[in-house]
Amino acid sequence: MSFVLRLDQTRELHWQTVFRQQMPEMAFHFWPECGNPEDVEYLALWKPDPEIFAQFPNLKLVFSLGAGVDQFDLSTLPPQVSLVRMIEPALTAGMVEYVTAFVLAIQRDLPLYRQQQTERLWQAHPERPAAATRVGIMGMGTLGTPCAKALLSLGFAVQGWNRSPRDIADVPVFAGDTELDAFLASTDILVCLLPLTDATRGLFRASLFSKLPKGASFINAGRGGHVVTDDLLGALDSGQLRWAVLDVTSPEPLPATSPLWEHPWIILTPHIASNTNAQSGAESVIANIRRFQAGQPPAGLVDRRKAY
Amino acid sequence: MSFVLRLDQTRELHWQTVFRQQMPEMAFHFWPECGNPEDVEYLALWKPDPEIFAQFPNLKLVFSLGAGVDQFDLSTLPPQVSLVRMIEPALTAGMVEYVTAFVLAIQRDLPLYRQQQTERLWQAHPERPAAATRVGIMGMGTLGTPCAKALLSLGFAVQGWNRSPRDIADVPVFAGDTELDAFLASTDILVCLLPLTDATRGLFRASLFSKLPKGASFINAGRGGHVVTDDLLGALDSGQLRWAVLDVTSPEPLPATSPLWEHPWIILTPHIASNTNAQSGAESVIANIRRFQAGQPPAGLVDRRKAY
Repeated sequence: MSFVLRLDQTRELHWQTVFRQQMPEMAFHFWPECGNPEDVEYLALWKPDPEIFAQFPNLKLVFSLGAGVDQFDLSTLPPQVSLVRMIEPALTAGMVEYVTAFVLAIQRDLPLYRQQQTERLWQAHPERPAAATRVGIMGMGTLGTPCAKALLSLGFAVQGWNRSPRDIADVPVFAGDTELDAFLASTDILVCLLPLTDATRGLFRASLFSKLPKGASFINAGRGGHVVTDDLLGALDSGQLRWAVLDVTSPEPLPATSPLWEHPWIILTPHIASNTNAQSGAESVIANIRRFQAGQPPAGLVDRRKAY
Repeated sequence: MSFVLRLDQTRELHWQTVFRQQMPEMAFHFWPECGNPEDVEYLALWKPDPEIFAQFPNLKLVFSLGAGVDQFDLSTLPPQVSLVRMIEPALTAGMVEYVTAFVLAIQRDLPLYRQQQTERLWQAHPERPAAATRVGIMGMGTLGTPCAKALLSLGFAVQGWNRSPRDIADVPVFAGDTELDAFLASTDILVCLLPLTDATRGLFRASLFSKLPKGASFINAGRGGHVVTDDLLGALDSGQLRWAVLDVTSPEPLPATSPLWEHPWIILTPHIASNTNAQSGAESVIANIRRFQAGQPPAGLVDRRKAY
């Protein structure tokens, strides 16, 4: 029984320390060193090569090192192997920080004041109270729900949309395609925290933006592939959208020639919204291996039909 | 018995509506129309003229329309007249939003990413978790305490400093001059929410900045007069301070010739952190008049010795 980790060297050493302390019985390998391939039951990595799984005939669980699994081609995963998304507290906390920071920045017009500073312009603008600012979060799972709660405690009018119904205290959650239009029509700041799947790729396009109230803003902390870039630019240029905050682009890194860099209403960050922490990430994987060994499903088990 | 309000016309009308609904027995006047000066017992305004109080021989309470009273020369206020600071929920909520937004922005290096965007640079930087980011709030009163609680709920390591001791759950509060150095030495993001008095004017100068850990940041949502501008610029240029967020300057509006506008590590906003809301501000004044009429002290009564 062994565990193989493929990660950069600094973080690998941290993971090794956590495994030695908390799961000393597990043989721990740094890719590409794997010991006897037949012993490898657990593999943790970010982007897989298509042929990597075939090397380990007794593989049981593959752990994604990030919250998403869209970097995996599920058809290359042998049928007896399960894929597990990363759910760990630091990853969640980072997303709550990012979403909260930018929802507040948009509500309080901070990007506009930053532009005014470059013009040496001292001018206040009327503002909308948090209670009258409707934040709509698409994707009410492990990340979306705590974001909603943090914004709720700051007084925002928070609602969610999710593919399947969710029951979350104090947060109305719209569900499925039939309720999407009503959700969009009542959203001033739209936050994408969806998984990227065939069902959500390109979902953020002109037809979706047009259903938001005029002057709404958009925060994408999902994946670049969720957005049709030309449609986003069109919605900003027409005034349909006011601000777009993009932590993710397609491709990444964003090429220097992209029009997104210099657009006056776009705020770009280089995929920093949230990262897996070595300590709590390793602890999460260890807890999931123990769950699996005890015959329970790991937290974050991917449903192959839904692809998340 | 009458009430005189000096304010801009739009907000005055809103105040009048609230008074008509909630305190119909009170004669309500818009400055400079005052009815019989001998009837005027209550006066609400922002910046007073020195001679304004002498016009009303039976004046009892003067209400500041903002959280601060540093715009008043207390020596011009007749001895039988009491001054009351504004305490109202929208003013508090605005400050919590502002402080939370910029503490998050600094923790997550968002101003740096904004600069990188102008350079078309896609580069992530290591980050410090909220739990390892020590936010120190100076002024743990009506505004500082709810800011501390909001940051605490986001996971920051929050501490306060106050002139007199305060007991606030989960927030260590340093008190008085003797504990200031220890507070500063353990603060990564320093937030000024102090009242401006003779004791705090120019408090934020080289000697104070030098007691912070190197690379600390500073958010001033107090008053411009708290800061010695040349010392602030010096601390930024030497790297002692990393970011300074200034909502207040001296004078305001900030002259176009000020070096603050273009400094790369300064973020300026035009005194928008928090404003008194017409509805809840009027309700707060009405509640205070009722308290006074019932022989109780108004909330926010200014202590003339402390000047806040």
